Amino acid sequence: MRAIRWVGFDGDDTLWKSEDYYRAAELEFEGILGTYLDLDNRRTLERLLETERRNLRIFGYGAKGMTLSMIEAAIELTGERISARDLHRIIEIGRATLQHPVELIDGIRAAVEAVAAEHEIVLITKGDLFHQESKIEQSGLADLFHRIEVVSEKDPATYRRVLRELDVPAERFVMIGNSMRSDIAPVLQVGGWGVYLPYPVTWAHEAEHDEIADAGRWREVDAAAGLPQALAEIEQAARAAGIG
Amino acid sequence: MRAIRWVGFDGDDTLWKSEDYYRAAELEFEGILGTYLDLDNRRTLERLLETERRNLRIFGYGAKGMTLSMIEAAIELTGERISARDLHRIIEIGRATLQHPVELIDGIRAAVEAVAAEHEIVLITKGDLFHQESKIEQSGLADLFHRIEVVSEKDPATYRRVLRELDVPAERFVMIGNSMRSDIAPVLQVGGWGVYLPYPVTWAHEAEHDEIADAGRWREVDAAAGLPQALAEIEQAARAAGIG
Repeated sequence: MRAIRWVGFDGDDTLWKSEDYYRAAELEFEGILGTYLDLDNRRTLERLLETERRNLRIFGYGAKGMTLSMIEAAIELTGERISARDLHRIIEIGRATLQHPVELIDGIRAAVEAVAAEHEIVLITKGDLFHQESKIEQSGLADLFHRIEVVSEKDPATYRRVLRELDVPAERFVMIGNSMRSDIAPVLQVGGWGVYLPYPVTWAHEAEHDEIADAGRWREVDAAAGLPQALAEIEQAARAAGIG
Repeated sequence: MRAIRWVGFDGDDTLWKSEDYYRAAELEFEGILGTYLDLDNRRTLERLLETERRNLRIFGYGAKGMTLSMIEAAIELTGERISARDLHRIIEIGRATLQHPVELIDGIRAAVEAVAAEHEIVLITKGDLFHQESKIEQSGLADLFHRIEVVSEKDPATYRRVLRELDVPAERFVMIGNSMRSDIAPVLQVGGWGVYLPYPVTWAHEAEHDEIADAGRWREVDAAAGLPQALAEIEQAARAAGIG
């Protein structure tokens, strides 16, 4: 029997492109505010990030929360001078973000198929339930996964719950994703393994993470095509550690 | 062995009060728009419902979608005359709705405990993932449930998926809820049973449903205390039908 039984994949920016659309949304937001403000653009986006972070506790992740935070930040930054028409344009930004095309990451379909041939695989993705389900369906990858979990936060408690439901011990689970904060660090913390597949664009909030101590339990690959090899190395390391 | 193995409970307005807070939000919304409009209040809320329905396909259910629809309806209804300050007040309505206190329906804890003593029970609730998880936690009922499923839509396909994951045939499943449209009709359609526990307030969208043909497969109770008896009747009917 294999040491590694289940492999998890993140969704946004691991299976399909996402952050690019959020960045495009921010650019449009800056453009609208630019007609009201002398602030340079960096300061505008800093204030948006502050508003989003303050609201995360109430709104959670996702494009609807982003849109509400954009409206709120726009009202506050302009001292209530922004017009209803421009606020309507911000709602349109949100609507467009929720309907962005789903474009797969290069090589990911072949990589997911290769991994699925060897392991049970689960998609663990964070954000608006409705938007995530829509992207999963459009991705054409849904049928490859044995389980799909949309979660509101990717912290150790969430991974413990998902692994309990999959009935797999953490030491036999590998998570693949583009966020050290959400995909790798919490999985290592509960005793699992990780493969970090970075995406060129990362939301500032996701980029922050504590130092990862457990260097032996994760690998980094620079393209989806490298995933099967990284998993083979982890399988070997797990066996060497007496798992399986 | 019992004929009925799993019993599902809806969340909003079945376990805890919800619609009252959405109605209060609508009243506040009307109050803000009243300073701009000669429309009578019913017309204002009709337009809000139209906007919400148009947006459901993109925003899904829940308080964040409602808030975005309120902002959009307010901008459209006022011909873009509404002030940024008043739009900010609408965001505050949304924030308050997302943080409303979780107040259990009369007698529901005892009823859930009684049902859990006899059956496996699952919470199947619809809406914003983040908000639903927050309400589940605050309800103090989470530990009574063997499974919790937050879903984006309650249609036959969703119930089929959940029943498959629970590994239970539909004829051995009963759903309890306050919405004929979301909790009873689709479950009967896939071959299950229902107990309709109406709540005095129902969102217009949820109140609409096709005629329910299968009168023998559901019961109506007027209070949570009636649930164990209704389930006992269904158990008997199921056995009489040769199930179990």
